[in-house]
Amino acid sequence: MTTPWLASLKRTFPGPQLRTDEKTLAAYSSDSWFASHQPDAVFFPRKAEDVAKLLKFATRHKIPVTARGAGKGYVGGCVPEHGGIVVSFEKMNRILEINQPDGVAVVQPGVITGHLQTAVEKVGLFYPPDPASLKDCFIGGNVATNAGGPRCVKYGVTRHYILGLQVALADGTLVRVGGRTHKNKSGLDLVGMFVGSEGLLGLVTEITVRLLPLPRARAVFSAGFRTAPQAAAAVQAILANGFLPSALEVADQFTLRAARKHLGGELVPPGAACLIVEIDGQPASVRSEAKQLLAIIRRAGGLQIRSALTPRDAEKIWDLRRGFSMSLKATGLTKLNEDITVPRGKLVDLFAFAAKLQKKYGLAVASFGHAGDGNIHVNIMVDLTQPGVKPKMHRALDELFTQVIAWKGAITGEHGIGLAKLRWWKKAASPELRALHRTVKLALDPHRLLNPGKFI
Amino acid sequence: MTTPWLASLKRTFPGPQLRTDEKTLAAYSSDSWFASHQPDAVFFPRKAEDVAKLLKFATRHKIPVTARGAGKGYVGGCVPEHGGIVVSFEKMNRILEINQPDGVAVVQPGVITGHLQTAVEKVGLFYPPDPASLKDCFIGGNVATNAGGPRCVKYGVTRHYILGLQVALADGTLVRVGGRTHKNKSGLDLVGMFVGSEGLLGLVTEITVRLLPLPRARAVFSAGFRTAPQAAAAVQAILANGFLPSALEVADQFTLRAARKHLGGELVPPGAACLIVEIDGQPASVRSEAKQLLAIIRRAGGLQIRSALTPRDAEKIWDLRRGFSMSLKATGLTKLNEDITVPRGKLVDLFAFAAKLQKKYGLAVASFGHAGDGNIHVNIMVDLTQPGVKPKMHRALDELFTQVIAWKGAITGEHGIGLAKLRWWKKAASPELRALHRTVKLALDPHRLLNPGKFI
Repeated sequence: MTTPWLASLKRTFPGPQLRTDEKTLAAYSSDSWFASHQPDAVFFPRKAEDVAKLLKFATRHKIPVTARGAGKGYVGGCVPEHGGIVVSFEKMNRILEINQPDGVAVVQPGVITGHLQTAVEKVGLFYPPDPASLKDCFIGGNVATNAGGPRCVKYGVTRHYILGLQVALADGTLVRVGGRTHKNKSGLDLVGMFVGSEGLLGLVTEITVRLLPLPRARAVFSAGFRTAPQAAAAVQAILANGFLPSALEVADQFTLRAARKHLGGELVPPGAACLIVEIDGQPASVRSEAKQLLAIIRRAGGLQIRSALTPRDAEKIWDLRRGFSMSLKATGLTKLNEDITVPRGKLVDLFAFAAKLQKKYGLAVASFGHAGDGNIHVNIMVDLTQPGVKPKMHRALDELFTQVIAWKGAITGEHGIGLAKLRWWKKAASPELRALHRTVKLALDPHRLLNPGKFI
Repeated sequence: MTTPWLASLKRTFPGPQLRTDEKTLAAYSSDSWFASHQPDAVFFPRKAEDVAKLLKFATRHKIPVTARGAGKGYVGGCVPEHGGIVVSFEKMNRILEINQPDGVAVVQPGVITGHLQTAVEKVGLFYPPDPASLKDCFIGGNVATNAGGPRCVKYGVTRHYILGLQVALADGTLVRVGGRTHKNKSGLDLVGMFVGSEGLLGLVTEITVRLLPLPRARAVFSAGFRTAPQAAAAVQAILANGFLPSALEVADQFTLRAARKHLGGELVPPGAACLIVEIDGQPASVRSEAKQLLAIIRRAGGLQIRSALTPRDAEKIWDLRRGFSMSLKATGLTKLNEDITVPRGKLVDLFAFAAKLQKKYGLAVASFGHAGDGNIHVNIMVDLTQPGVKPKMHRALDELFTQVIAWKGAITGEHGIGLAKLRWWKKAASPELRALHRTVKLALDPHRLLNPGKFI
């Protein structure tokens, strides 16, 4: 493969900022999904101006540029499908400011989300978005995917906490959009345009986030239910009683069975489904609401209800929730995690449909996730060593996504399209919608250099 | 004025959907601000396809098209500055669906925001955005301006409640963006691109909103403070104690004096500043939090603290808050309402700066508004009959906006740019930011037909 521009790139960036050794190229060719494609070079900017300079070079030479956070994505979003240059933000990892009176923090994109959370909690502030990978993922990757997590049901997604961005556009122009005020109606919502754009419209080089007062207390509950419809009815009962919990999670029978095997029986509630509910707020309020919630869950048929009012006990229940994914992996099967979203009223239908799929294709289906906003991780579990499993798997996935689209659901609630959802993106989006995506993309990146090979 | 296309337009829409009589043209030439410009025709669509057909006509003949909600804006946003056709959504005023299990409503843009709120509350749901004009304004106008209101501090702005839109693009293409799930990461955030775009990118013809469980109880408090810095310190104390109130409003000395005169002394707290605080949630929680809040406000120096735990008493305190604007108008002076936003830590500086302006220019300044998110309505009060007041007023406004920009504040927190903020938009936005706005605008509206004469 000849890359005549590579010598010129090396002359432009002669230092350790640029790497082209095989080991580095291999390490930056994939994320947590299957797909992989090697870049020609990996660039490690230390400041926004480095990114701008690189993009000017890329525009001049028409080289693809793919931004990369911590590589914890589930859909191949940062795989450099057309080669070119990967820009890794791992050296831009400083928290630049935490301002308590303003309720604002300013960070570089390579800051680990969990580090930001810990740092702001020290001054009584709260950054709510909590993707599962928060101990490892970068806030820049969260911005690229508009990351979610269990707390979204009450607190909303990453977008709701981004006040301002500095962005390097495809041609290397640096521009600041938004600002540092909690409310801002100056011009178009260009912050929103970049958040969730999966590296297709620009490279984010600085992020200003909105911070809330840290809730002083939390309580977490787990309960088993005899059937999935009972668990779904409990979700509706909690909401109908005026509760907007800070998490409202559900898991199905296959998930619970795997968890019993992997985590041990005591932690896992009995029954064919379970709920995990968290509330937060002032200590006295949490205590009195805990009593009300227990009564609601009991009335809805909750079995072996556990309530955790101390951080330590709460962590134990969250260990269960976090253990679902590992438990499924421990089955030895390959887990195809599809983070579909259905309108919340369709939760029961979704569980019934998953059971039907399981029967029809002879593939195990494990569903768990964010019941409060209808964002369920439907995991089709496959043994890839079995002959003939792949076409079956594809048919099952096709059927799942077709049904989700028919329900007016979303093919991805928080992971993004990346490469994994490309196939269904074309079915989910109307020709007019795809044309509009192209219009916006071409306006901002006329040479299609940013993360090419993805959904636009 | 010759408008050769008008005859053709009348042939295309021969019915009562199109009006060109002088009275109608005059009635649709302005909003709640000063500016006025007559359109050549006013169009009253009944369905999305009408809007699409009109836009196809407008594109063919290159006629300006300006969308209009209820005309309750404060910045001249819907004034048809270049004439052409005003599209009024008042006939598209149906609530199409309220779905309790899904937590979703689907509405036409001409639905009055307050009607939507009342309708969803009947089934235990809650649409939080509460602009001051909610009894008269259209949800479509709220979408166009990304409307705010007192509750934003806890619940966020209109954007956070819009799940999906049907939009008529400049060329008449109808496209659906977003959907009806509470979480959705399918493609770019085009919902966000249209929300707050002030009619410059497309015309919204249907809106799907996210609904929350209705909080079961509220409590409202009012308190006077000897000085504005004391009131601002109370705001910080409330937040630092882990409270995120559903409203956190402040008013200054001039506002309070006007209110005492207009509303009577009993309702208005003593002192040079006042706070209004609202919390909501489960009844027992609200009761116990009310006690805590009272103690915090008392410690912060609150005078004559009133607390309202019943809806009736709460309404009385809100009457005070809503009365500020009327009280200022009752002074007989003209009220120039600038809804600037400062980083929250700059509240004290803002009040001090307003006092300085008042002294320097001999113009009264009345400030009140949303302290929780730093979005303060700074009202410069002028007697327009006085000779030489206008240049003074312009200098005072220039100085205010220059300072707000220097503080990294926003020139508008919720009203939008419209015509009123055009002058400062050019100072607030960098050349790169304005270029990016033009790029997006031209991609979506290449002939600049949508709401021309505004900020892009």
